Amino acid sequence: MTHEKKVIRDPIHGDIKFEGLVLDLIEAPELQRLYNIKQLGFAHLVFPGAHHTRLEHSLGTYYMALKVSEILNLKTNDKEVITCAALLHDIGHGPFSHTLEFVLKELLNVDHIDLTEKLILGKHTIFDERERNLIASESVVEILEKKCIDKKKIIDIIKGKIDKKPYLSQLLNAPIDVDQLDYIVRDAYYTGVAYGMIDIERFLQTLIIKNNNLAVRKKGIGVIENILMARTLMYSSVYFHKTVRIAEIMLSKAIEMLNKIKPFELFKMTDGELLNKLNKKGVYQYEIATRIKYRNLFKQAYLASKEDFDEEEINIIKKLENSDYRRKKEQELEELLNIPQGHVIIDVPFQELFQAEPRIFKTDIPIIDGNNVKSFDDYTPMAKAVKSRSIPDWIIMIVTDDKYREIVSKKSEKILFG
Amino acid sequence: MTHEKKVIRDPIHGDIKFEGLVLDLIEAPELQRLYNIKQLGFAHLVFPGAHHTRLEHSLGTYYMALKVSEILNLKTNDKEVITCAALLHDIGHGPFSHTLEFVLKELLNVDHIDLTEKLILGKHTIFDERERNLIASESVVEILEKKCIDKKKIIDIIKGKIDKKPYLSQLLNAPIDVDQLDYIVRDAYYTGVAYGMIDIERFLQTLIIKNNNLAVRKKGIGVIENILMARTLMYSSVYFHKTVRIAEIMLSKAIEMLNKIKPFELFKMTDGELLNKLNKKGVYQYEIATRIKYRNLFKQAYLASKEDFDEEEINIIKKLENSDYRRKKEQELEELLNIPQGHVIIDVPFQELFQAEPRIFKTDIPIIDGNNVKSFDDYTPMAKAVKSRSIPDWIIMIVTDDKYREIVSKKSEKILFG
Amino acid sequence: MTHEKKVIRDPIHGDIKFEGLVLDLIEAPELQRLYNIKQLGFAHLVFPGAHHTRLEHSLGTYYMALKVSEILNLKTNDKEVITCAALLHDIGHGPFSHTLEFVLKELLNVDHIDLTEKLILGKHTIFDERERNLIASESVVEILEKKCIDKKKIIDIIKGKIDKKPYLSQLLNAPIDVDQLDYIVRDAYYTGVAYGMIDIERFLQTLIIKNNNLAVRKKGIGVIENILMARTLMYSSVYFHKTVRIAEIMLSKAIEMLNKIKPFELFKMTDGELLNKLNKKGVYQYEIATRIKYRNLFKQAYLASKEDFDEEEINIIKKLENSDYRRKKEQELEELLNIPQGHVIIDVPFQELFQAEPRIFKTDIPIIDGNNVKSFDDYTPMAKAVKSRSIPDWIIMIVTDDKYREIVSKKSEKILFG
Amino acid sequence: MTHEKKVIRDPIHGDIKFEGLVLDLIEAPELQRLYNIKQLGFAHLVFPGAHHTRLEHSLGTYYMALKVSEILNLKTNDKEVITCAALLHDIGHGPFSHTLEFVLKELLNVDHIDLTEKLILGKHTIFDERERNLIASESVVEILEKKCIDKKKIIDIIKGKIDKKPYLSQLLNAPIDVDQLDYIVRDAYYTGVAYGMIDIERFLQTLIIKNNNLAVRKKGIGVIENILMARTLMYSSVYFHKTVRIAEIMLSKAIEMLNKIKPFELFKMTDGELLNKLNKKGVYQYEIATRIKYRNLFKQAYLASKEDFDEEEINIIKKLENSDYRRKKEQELEELLNIPQGHVIIDVPFQELFQAEPRIFKTDIPIIDGNNVKSFDDYTPMAKAVKSRSIPDWIIMIVTDDKYREIVSKKSEKILFG
Repeated sequence: MTHEKKVIRDPIHGDIKFEGLVLDLIEAPELQRLYNIKQLGFAHLVFPGAHHTRLEHSLGTYYMALKVSEILNLKTNDKEVITCAALLHDIGHGPFSHTLEFVLKELLNVDHIDLTEKLILGKHTIFDERERNLIASESVVEILEKKCIDKKKIIDIIKGKIDKKPYLSQLLNAPIDVDQLDYIVRDAYYTGVAYGMIDIERFLQTLIIKNNNLAVRKKGIGVIENILMARTLMYSSVYFHKTVRIAEIMLSKAIEMLNKIKPFELFKMTDGELLNKLNKKGVYQYEIATRIKYRNLFKQAYLASKEDFDEEEINIIKKLENSDYRRKKEQELEELLNIPQGHVIIDVPFQELFQAEPRIFKTDIPIIDGNNVKSFDDYTPMAKAVKSRSIPDWIIMIVTDDKYREIVSKKSEKILFG
Repeated sequence: MTHEKKVIRDPIHGDIKFEGLVLDLIEAPELQRLYNIKQLGFAHLVFPGAHHTRLEHSLGTYYMALKVSEILNLKTNDKEVITCAALLHDIGHGPFSHTLEFVLKELLNVDHIDLTEKLILGKHTIFDERERNLIASESVVEILEKKCIDKKKIIDIIKGKIDKKPYLSQLLNAPIDVDQLDYIVRDAYYTGVAYGMIDIERFLQTLIIKNNNLAVRKKGIGVIENILMARTLMYSSVYFHKTVRIAEIMLSKAIEMLNKIKPFELFKMTDGELLNKLNKKGVYQYEIATRIKYRNLFKQAYLASKEDFDEEEINIIKKLENSDYRRKKEQELEELLNIPQGHVIIDVPFQELFQAEPRIFKTDIPIIDGNNVKSFDDYTPMAKAVKSRSIPDWIIMIVTDDKYREIVSKKSEKILFG
Repeated sequence: MTHEKKVIRDPIHGDIKFEGLVLDLIEAPELQRLYNIKQLGFAHLVFPGAHHTRLEHSLGTYYMALKVSEILNLKTNDKEVITCAALLHDIGHGPFSHTLEFVLKELLNVDHIDLTEKLILGKHTIFDERERNLIASESVVEILEKKCIDKKKIIDIIKGKIDKKPYLSQLLNAPIDVDQLDYIVRDAYYTGVAYGMIDIERFLQTLIIKNNNLAVRKKGIGVIENILMARTLMYSSVYFHKTVRIAEIMLSKAIEMLNKIKPFELFKMTDGELLNKLNKKGVYQYEIATRIKYRNLFKQAYLASKEDFDEEEINIIKKLENSDYRRKKEQELEELLNIPQGHVIIDVPFQELFQAEPRIFKTDIPIIDGNNVKSFDDYTPMAKAVKSRSIPDWIIMIVTDDKYREIVSKKSEKILFG
Repeated sequence: MTHEKKVIRDPIHGDIKFEGLVLDLIEAPELQRLYNIKQLGFAHLVFPGAHHTRLEHSLGTYYMALKVSEILNLKTNDKEVITCAALLHDIGHGPFSHTLEFVLKELLNVDHIDLTEKLILGKHTIFDERERNLIASESVVEILEKKCIDKKKIIDIIKGKIDKKPYLSQLLNAPIDVDQLDYIVRDAYYTGVAYGMIDIERFLQTLIIKNNNLAVRKKGIGVIENILMARTLMYSSVYFHKTVRIAEIMLSKAIEMLNKIKPFELFKMTDGELLNKLNKKGVYQYEIATRIKYRNLFKQAYLASKEDFDEEEINIIKKLENSDYRRKKEQELEELLNIPQGHVIIDVPFQELFQAEPRIFKTDIPIIDGNNVKSFDDYTPMAKAVKSRSIPDWIIMIVTDDKYREIVSKKSEKILFG
């Protein structure tokens, strides 16, 4: 492997240069597979420009990590691991990114971070035996070992647990980090939603390491407010857009209703492979895959937000967060209303939001003002506001085929809440 | 079908409103299928942001047609057919858009315009019988007939042959037309290549109908130069980028080497369906699909441009434009150099460029200066320059597996040109 | 005056068309004078791109008003007055826009709205008698009268008091209005600060008239949050940037120290005319004008924010809001520290912020959710946060010449707070 | 002078950092004065956003020089002089930039480059004696001498004559150089004209030094075509826009008709100072300044392009390039048609274009292809086309007050061409 260097044109960050280790890594099958996995699951069904993939996001996160490393004057060695970690942090993503993560976590107790770890350690491969011979590049684990890179450290950074130099994992796991800097702007660009136009450059200029922790200079308060606000709005208007969500829970239901799944088999598929596989896995799965192909989605039959309920009802909704209970209720609705199985889906999104983006309720960024360190929360009322603002608009939604919409709409509240 | 209206956010043109007829059409299966077909085939292998699809381009072309209709004050009826034609002009595209068009034209003698016609007339369907029941929306032909739209006229506009009001088909078929206005800017946006930043607004302001033909006011000369230049640069740096081209001819070869193809079966597939189908169609097809999945492409072993040849050699290259002859030569190379079948591909791109974009060598735009009508060619030396500039950089390229690169590189010139 | 139409290219909104009445108005001397008055006073001393003028902002506000009129389907007559009002709303601005408004209000008890009114009614003219003959166009009042436009109604809209159709003045005077839509984006564009990239298009789509009041549909909550946040950040990082502020209070001090001012004489000057006039009005005025020319500004010697003070001290600061008292204190400092007159300036900015933008603490936008009307404040914690967030960063700042900086820095707190 | 560093936000290039020598230089009075001199003279009369100044352009040119220095790995010393030269290259510009250069060259035989040289050598000062004491910063010559910078070398680079390392002056004086890279994009941004959206990043990546000369790698041909085209279009649609030109020749005429001018006195004024001075210099000068203030411009009475003339007439036009002859003809027209002096102006723009931008007809950029060096002209027909394309649209224009327009329009051709 004697590449010289490669310049890739990214619509977000402009020309990005790759050479040596990172050039080898982007040619590895684990990275190349990511250009077959959409960054935003089914967002393109609502925002038709949103076809961008995990590959671009991985390149962009790498670039952000590189920029920060330069600004913070990190040592060569630290720079190497943090940029590798940024580049690799999403290689464990299954088809349609976060879409299926909740159902898979529940069924198989794995998520994309576990799989990223396994791939980096070489405990799994992303490709079949038969494919192996047709892949020219070495795999990620082979490259890392040949170059003697500390795989354990990369995983620790990705998982957010590094003791000695906490700022290294904070770069990739903090209320604002390089991962978010890339995805907010990138998702805004491809969806065409202006909310995400944050000022990355200004933010980077305010970063500083203080007592081995990543912190922000006081003048950076405005840009933090801007970024947190942008992220919040992207969540409520794009990531948890109602129609996008409907497509996601339809696919999740199709997976849930499969007889048996080998976890890693499913995770290693690309978007296209999953849809094709589903076509052959049962009548319901075929229906869902075809509906998605032609964008014939279920419709919202019932939707309510927090303010619509009293405490007792909220408790019922909390119970619905348990999948078994929720499924029981879905079947109850289907049976009572004479609807075929899998055609009533109850969405109780809170936990899923939290799993997809645990950072969303965190704003405790250390702010450096002269010699003092205080929290961002102490400086501006925006901190609290961001944390207490509700995303998404509903705490419960019931969706069904257009033809059962009216009946579900009329009866479901009664059935669920008595 | 009692839709009210729908606003779609397009990163290029901003909010686009749809209602009535066009809203019904964008929900038809023929249109929805297009979001599974990449606008630029394999350009994303070089420009990682280029995952946009024929659907966005169709919406954008519709919007351009609508804007022009308003600026030119077209009659309601004409406005209706031209905007429908713009929206539907690409529904016949097969997987990966233009990628396979050349080989399919040769093997089956159909192209995407023939298929667009058949779909509009209802002589073919884009979906299987089994899929039919899972599609809620009516098909394009059903919608057009219900609304009593003149299908013939739409097809004539798309094909560029309208006698009475030639400007109607010129809006979609001219040296600069609404199709190009959309694709130049859109492709520039998603690839991140700045060349395509043309001034659509200024161009539209200069349009005028003169003697039933579409023309441009004299003050529009600069913006025409700008657009023609942008288009030329997009062709040489993006559409005919060498690496993109290599992926395209690899897939074409895989199709060519199939035993038999039912033309429409192949054409109606999505990108993902085609790659999945190939996986099961033979060892070579599996190899190509897997190589594309992991971006393990053939490499350039030989490449030459016009200036490198004398007249006799140019004649040999011209002969290579004949597919049978070219295939014979490919086999000859494979046999002489002991390379397995399908692993040497000769690319002689000129005819294909011409088929993909016949407008590229046309600049005869009527310019209105007071009462005079002259051609754009008379006003500026840029016209001639655009037409005589060579695209792509090579007139012949030979590609092969990395491991045969050296031998092909050494021997092929001798074998081909004696 | 028989103009046909004119298309002006605006970097923010693209091509803007003018014809008839509004075309006549933009050629009137009152409007043309505005291209000599910087939109953001001295912001260009910190943000070197910020040389844009009140003229562009006036054109942009007109365009926003036109767009809203179309979206809300206003009657021709209402459309005419609201667009005229938007175009004319800033013609009374004096040199450097808001910069001198506070001192002039205090000295002369007039502000730019009073003068706008006088100009529209023809009670003042913006030009000298001698200039009159060299101006080809009619004045605003002549044009309005010739076209029989209701001047009173225009003034009422500008002043925010219309009884019958309150939505008309709300379009130009509300927590979010067409004036702000233009200036937030425009100021962001010219300063290069990304904060202001709000989604105008999306906001406009959510507007509605309800019970004769301007309201926003529920789906517009996110975009309102986005705009309010953007405005807040523009205030703290641009409009009340410390260095910009220093230049502004230097010029204000030069005006304050003039022997006598004829109010309207000063107001009708352009930026350049004012600086030239100052050059001849006294030694101190010459000094200030020259310092501004070469950007040799006073420096911050003392600065403190709310949290730095106890209640008693806050009361002292409140007393400083009274100009006479403040001037007395400035002189006291100058005398005690042996500094020449006019070289110590105390800034207590709160009232001035409030005068410059009274809308900044208002967020009570009516939100329409089905048949309910609630306030924006009820929907999101961002409302309260925006109102309680402090702008600017200081409640008191003392500036002086670089050479007195140390001494002022050391002594002033003691002198002021005892 | 112990500045640390300063980050300036530029809307074009983002954050630009300054420290040490260049930070001192930007605070020098010669640089600060430039924010009072509009980059594009009177372009804002047509493109209302175009109020940007020579200061921003100087900062941007510095930044481009810095980027190139890094890409080409220049030595510290060379980097220092080239970036200083870029920063200082325009300090000699008089009011309204190029606007008056032609008339001043003619009357006084100096241009902005001569004055730049004098300022760098300390042979002139930009400020008055009285101003001196109010300027805190050292002047350019003081800074350069204190830091022991080779002033002669900086001047040689600015003037384009360096023998040993020709690439140094080529960076600032070549068919494409850092000066143009900045102004094309900057002028496009502020005028809102999309033509100038060139791909700076891509261009910079293709630069290389070959035999001590600046050259471009072969893959850069497309981006060169793009830049040359953009420049050409900016010239014909912005810099030589007819209305902009009319304002420019009006001001030039007012200068020309002054009794006597002290060259450097005029050159060192700012835009505002010149207009104010003119107000007091005579009736005609007052008229012109007032007309410009209120945008009451002369109107085009006669305009013709090359193709409208035979050879003999072309010779007459060539004679008009001589100012004395042209003035004689203007007076002849005024007398014959009974028009007051200074109210008929003949524009024969060719020489002026050439003086303003001598690079416009140069395209001989060395292209590196492997070991070969050929000229850009050999690679693409666009080179010749750019050189032969006419700018501006007219070779002769006559302008006058609106009230004499008709008579001048009718009679002038006869009077001039007999």
